[in-house]
Amino acid sequence: MRIPNHIGVIPDGNRRWAVKQGLGKEQGYGPGLDPGLQLFKLCKELGVKELTYYGFTTDNTKRPAVQTKAFTAACIDAVKMLSKEDASLLVVGNSSSPMFPKELLPFTKRKQFGKGGMRVNFLVNYGWEWDLGNANDLTTNNRNTIISYLKSSDITRVDLIIRWGGRRRLSGFLPVQSVYSDFYIIDDYWPDFNPSQFYEAIEWYDKQDITLGG
Amino acid sequence: MRIPNHIGVIPDGNRRWAVKQGLGKEQGYGPGLDPGLQLFKLCKELGVKELTYYGFTTDNTKRPAVQTKAFTAACIDAVKMLSKEDASLLVVGNSSSPMFPKELLPFTKRKQFGKGGMRVNFLVNYGWEWDLGNANDLTTNNRNTIISYLKSSDITRVDLIIRWGGRRRLSGFLPVQSVYSDFYIIDDYWPDFNPSQFYEAIEWYDKQDITLGG
Repeated sequence: MRIPNHIGVIPDGNRRWAVKQGLGKEQGYGPGLDPGLQLFKLCKELGVKELTYYGFTTDNTKRPAVQTKAFTAACIDAVKMLSKEDASLLVVGNSSSPMFPKELLPFTKRKQFGKGGMRVNFLVNYGWEWDLGNANDLTTNNRNTIISYLKSSDITRVDLIIRWGGRRRLSGFLPVQSVYSDFYIIDDYWPDFNPSQFYEAIEWYDKQDITLGG
Repeated sequence: MRIPNHIGVIPDGNRRWAVKQGLGKEQGYGPGLDPGLQLFKLCKELGVKELTYYGFTTDNTKRPAVQTKAFTAACIDAVKMLSKEDASLLVVGNSSSPMFPKELLPFTKRKQFGKGGMRVNFLVNYGWEWDLGNANDLTTNNRNTIISYLKSSDITRVDLIIRWGGRRRLSGFLPVQSVYSDFYIIDDYWPDFNPSQFYEAIEWYDKQDITLGG
């Protein structure tokens, strides 16, 4: 079986899940923590080399304060939780903005935790415009050079993007690293994560013809 | 019904269609011309304001010469065919490369044909690296300014991308204009185009919650 080197995860549907449970929208983020850890462990078991979680974006920060507080807290907890595992961890996002939680500043340089191993990236206060902007010395169209000018240059090409919550879009997720990614959509909401959803995505990916645009 | 302002079309599966018919792979492109015209007319009828076809890419040009000749010829024919309709037509791609057909050079500035109307873009010898590269004065992360630095700056944000041929990926299609696009995948090959596939995509899009990342 061909295992993707790098999986991107868009853990969407937290608010819809909360509403369905009769909870406030902001209560949908906490229940996404345990799925994140489960997914990390499944990827490690399979030999995935890099895993990128879509935490929150500069777009998301325009939501009501009670929600931005809740998803920021959940991202802080998620990164701390992953730092207790064996992983090579990096938080990527606009850390010079007040929306970036200062608790995560120590994670903005890649660091090995435990025995290291799988590269795990967490996008926090990430914006595609932040990632692509200010490339003012870029005088080439060489692919590797373009990537080196991104703020997210320490994140490699994504092979498979799995999105929970049914929406079929990238919502600004790493536009350059995603140019050749295969997308797999799971209709269930992220807090309803189940390992079988992940295995279905991996089995689907195994059947894809990978051409990198060729 | 909410009609997308801008539809991107990835007309994939020509070679697989040809093989299924017992033909050479290069014979799959010609039968894609009539579907292209049908789609143009359907979009016009619905009031779509802009339509972008994915012609061929710098990646595609690495294929065997018999194929590159065939898809280049089909793109030339398609653009000429569209120039007989009422449309505001633009060809976007790396025209300084020898792979760019000189027959299409007159189309690299937007021009009105017939009574004008719908904006129709055709990507020819397009490469994401060409589009993003050489942004060497880009000293901001303002979204509109980033877009103005793209080679494809005359193409607006894409609302809905419809891909024929079953693959669930962008394959380098306009990475910046696609950050918020909704993707609809049709399993049939492009030469097996049928208006009902298009209407299904439009109906699906009508049910999506458009948030632009918010």
